[in-house]
Amino acid sequence: MDSHISPVDLPKAYRLINHGPTVLVSACHAGVDNVMAAAWACALDFAPPKLTVVLDKSSKTRELIERSGAFVIQVPTVAQLRLTNTVGTLSLSTEPDKLKKSGVELFGMAGLDLPFVAGCSAWLACKLIPEQHNQQTYDLFIGEVVGAWADERVFSDGRWHFEDADPALRSLHHVAGGHFYAIGEPVSFGD
Amino acid sequence: MDSHISPVDLPKAYRLINHGPTVLVSACHAGVDNVMAAAWACALDFAPPKLTVVLDKSSKTRELIERSGAFVIQVPTVAQLRLTNTVGTLSLSTEPDKLKKSGVELFGMAGLDLPFVAGCSAWLACKLIPEQHNQQTYDLFIGEVVGAWADERVFSDGRWHFEDADPALRSLHHVAGGHFYAIGEPVSFGD
Repeated sequence: MDSHISPVDLPKAYRLINHGPTVLVSACHAGVDNVMAAAWACALDFAPPKLTVVLDKSSKTRELIERSGAFVIQVPTVAQLRLTNTVGTLSLSTEPDKLKKSGVELFGMAGLDLPFVAGCSAWLACKLIPEQHNQQTYDLFIGEVVGAWADERVFSDGRWHFEDADPALRSLHHVAGGHFYAIGEPVSFGD
Repeated sequence: MDSHISPVDLPKAYRLINHGPTVLVSACHAGVDNVMAAAWACALDFAPPKLTVVLDKSSKTRELIERSGAFVIQVPTVAQLRLTNTVGTLSLSTEPDKLKKSGVELFGMAGLDLPFVAGCSAWLACKLIPEQHNQQTYDLFIGEVVGAWADERVFSDGRWHFEDADPALRSLHHVAGGHFYAIGEPVSFGD
């Protein structure tokens, strides 16, 4: 496990995705791990923290989440651009070695039977709140965040510090077709 | 109406918010207009385009949306930082001149009884898809996008062009407490 990972207080977990990054969604069931990319993930509540994520019916990760009732949302970095794009385009259904091809390295967290993607800047372990109507009608899944961690080189004291960290640790914001923007510079009210 | 505003094809409307900007939500009912800021807005579907937005029960804008069944999601710019922060902190319930104090200027679009905020970079006119369980339990609202427009100086041919536009037109990404990041530089798979 990466030595830079620190726990994040749950009431501040929403801040890890409040700025709208593209995320990686990971899950496992019956010995099968998978990871996908998702631009459509969003905070939903502060305490207990909840979030939404849109998961297409064709995605293998969705099936693992429906079966296991749990998943991880993690924030990939500029250094993981290729990984993010690759897990977002290959499917485990047709590419059994998808994770290897994508360069994904997984690690575990004590007490949680969930796959975490190494090298990300933040991780939110989620328990699925089953809502069949949303899942079937809108592909919309709701999770309660039960654990949160961040790379302390870029998120500490409840705050992102992109401007003081290695630019390779900036978050990715997908537009379309493999084109992303990195998060930019801070602007604050009163500047 | 701003002369730089061009319509966006509905199947590409999701791209206006795909990179996770903080948005302004506006609505009107019975002669009352309001505008609020929301970091928790997210694309939900491509065609017809849909989106989600989280609206707290205390917000006056939510009440206007529940009564009128319609709203606008718009993408504010770095130049609108003070406006965005102010409409996100003042409430119309206690500050009847909130919009004036915030420097909000509204305009209309032909055929739509909705207030649009001038100076934004993109606008998505939405029809509420009523989902009482989501609205009551999660403060989660679903809208179908029925019209989309963008400032062609920063979004054209279905693409954002932040890197070639005035930096004052970049999108805002709220972290917490009035601290935002502007969207940064493009990074593409293959770079």
